[in-house]
Amino acid sequence: MTAVSAREHSIDPFGTSSVNDYERLCSDFGIEPFGPMLSKVPEPSLYMRRGIVFGHRDFDRILESMRGRKSFAVLSGIKPTGEFHLGTLMTAKEIIYFQEHGAQTFYCIADVEAYEDNKIAFDRSMKTATDNVADMFALGLDPKKTYIYRQSKENRVKDLAIILARPVTLATLKAVYGERRIGLYLSALIQAGDILLPQLEDFDGPKPTVVPVGIDQDPHLRFTRDLCKVFKRKYGFVLPSSTYHKLIRGLDGSPKMAKRLGNYFTLHDKAETVVEKVSKAFTGGRNTVEEQREHGGVPEKCPVYDICLFHFVESDDAIRKTYHACKAGELLCGEHKEQVIDCVLKFVKEHGRRRRKFLEKAKAVVLAP
Amino acid sequence: MTAVSAREHSIDPFGTSSVNDYERLCSDFGIEPFGPMLSKVPEPSLYMRRGIVFGHRDFDRILESMRGRKSFAVLSGIKPTGEFHLGTLMTAKEIIYFQEHGAQTFYCIADVEAYEDNKIAFDRSMKTATDNVADMFALGLDPKKTYIYRQSKENRVKDLAIILARPVTLATLKAVYGERRIGLYLSALIQAGDILLPQLEDFDGPKPTVVPVGIDQDPHLRFTRDLCKVFKRKYGFVLPSSTYHKLIRGLDGSPKMAKRLGNYFTLHDKAETVVEKVSKAFTGGRNTVEEQREHGGVPEKCPVYDICLFHFVESDDAIRKTYHACKAGELLCGEHKEQVIDCVLKFVKEHGRRRRKFLEKAKAVVLAP
Repeated sequence: MTAVSAREHSIDPFGTSSVNDYERLCSDFGIEPFGPMLSKVPEPSLYMRRGIVFGHRDFDRILESMRGRKSFAVLSGIKPTGEFHLGTLMTAKEIIYFQEHGAQTFYCIADVEAYEDNKIAFDRSMKTATDNVADMFALGLDPKKTYIYRQSKENRVKDLAIILARPVTLATLKAVYGERRIGLYLSALIQAGDILLPQLEDFDGPKPTVVPVGIDQDPHLRFTRDLCKVFKRKYGFVLPSSTYHKLIRGLDGSPKMAKRLGNYFTLHDKAETVVEKVSKAFTGGRNTVEEQREHGGVPEKCPVYDICLFHFVESDDAIRKTYHACKAGELLCGEHKEQVIDCVLKFVKEHGRRRRKFLEKAKAVVLAP
Repeated sequence: MTAVSAREHSIDPFGTSSVNDYERLCSDFGIEPFGPMLSKVPEPSLYMRRGIVFGHRDFDRILESMRGRKSFAVLSGIKPTGEFHLGTLMTAKEIIYFQEHGAQTFYCIADVEAYEDNKIAFDRSMKTATDNVADMFALGLDPKKTYIYRQSKENRVKDLAIILARPVTLATLKAVYGERRIGLYLSALIQAGDILLPQLEDFDGPKPTVVPVGIDQDPHLRFTRDLCKVFKRKYGFVLPSSTYHKLIRGLDGSPKMAKRLGNYFTLHDKAETVVEKVSKAFTGGRNTVEEQREHGGVPEKCPVYDICLFHFVESDDAIRKTYHACKAGELLCGEHKEQVIDCVLKFVKEHGRRRRKFLEKAKAVVLAP
């Protein structure tokens, strides 16, 4: 493991992360850049095509399974602390992408982490999780083909945590996560259990597993991969793979959407809330219309451009046009915001309609013992 | 909590403890001396009568339940790392005493601790536990009236550990247990879960619970009682009570029987092993027969006297006679050893016969999911 501290990049799975330099991050933490992979992926996802998935660990192994139609798994999850927002939406789409490309699919509701880290009681997180799972189904996750579970109810995951704990020293935990309460270390061990769950005999044993996550979750991957090596002989674990997506900027221009900043909207927000939040969003625009006509805008630092790039413009051609129109000073912020608001409202409305249909199903899945 | 460090007394639940001054220990850690209780106990056990149970926490509450025939529980257990020996035998007898005096009885097989602390695989500790439970039944534990479980299979205990973990800081764990691997902290949390298990709704809710243990286990009690206060409002937990017995001396005269010193015999040892170990035991005798006839022996530091006092002489009159005969120089070590060997062999033989009858039953109980 590299000597560079996570703190330097502010990569913190239990906090709010920010990343200024994804390339440096890759080289510091031994994450491979995703770019060179792209041409080998049969049908790259939107995030892959747009460079939003910027890095990976051992994705070659997943690629081999995808191309050879061999068994592999995808696992990711959600911490049930609130409504689906544009950040959780990313992981959702990534899981669905791998499911549609043949992965055995695991969706983890990280209610132990929500409890240990955010003090959210299990009955409350159960309700939130039901909503989240309905969102997942509305987005296209196949209920019949996905193993959805709550950490607090999945004994195999808790038992893995106990087993994996043995060789772990405090020094290791401090190096990876910083000085934390025991509950957070425990939830890190449980996350390691999550990541290895697809490889247990109950799920047909060891196999390549991809974990698509935001870069802030990389400490969990590093920790799990190190443990995986220790227990390889006993369990035959294949080292889990991961992909890393960039973090979507907050509407206030800050590097990440965060609950405590209120700098995002959720998929459940009312139309007027969405309109207000996008209207007031920070942009990559200039101080005056004249300046912007002359020098163009700066989409690279614009959260309004970000939400198009990450979510609301499906066509790569269309997003390219938006980018160049902004750079050329042809597309001004006000106009762009109006376009974006239209897209968002259309999506939110359609999504809301779909998710209502899945609420009962979601409830049954989350309540299942 | 007192500022005196456990290290000063070498009270270490994960190691080998020694205690030179039980009185000072009581005052340093806020353990109440048991003596003043004795006259109030309706039928005090052998260990209580002989001052082997020297301290307690909140035993008044248990006494009240015993006298008023109100509901209370006893919980203790065994770390399944080897055969039953004279140390584990003590806890066994204490549990049985409280069971016979009306306690709802819980017997915990601490296989998670055996795994985290002693690296013993779960399938191996299962076999050891089967033997240990057969010993318990042979000693008089009522299979029908005891809830016997393995930590690794008791999800309620593991879930309690997760719940209890949240407010616990590393500083607290270090203060109570010293700097340890996470696995040992995790097993401390699971022990706290064990101690509170009898108070869950599944077992008819909050109630006084007595945990009879060796003084080396007191850190678990202090830790659990502190947590209990934090979760009192949510669960209505009654602060658990405990009794503390002195540690039985090793046959080499060292303060505790310990596997790595080989200074004890087990209930499964062959007759010739028992004979050899007791024959070679350190005693409180003098250098020469003449000196001993003149000054008498020192039973207070004699492990051969200890095993009579703790285990093999039921009658208080008989043990008193032995004590005075030794002090008066009438009973010499060789003769006493012969008496003791007879007692031990008789006990071991009878016990072996009884335990063989219980092996199948024990297997069924330990294997039960």
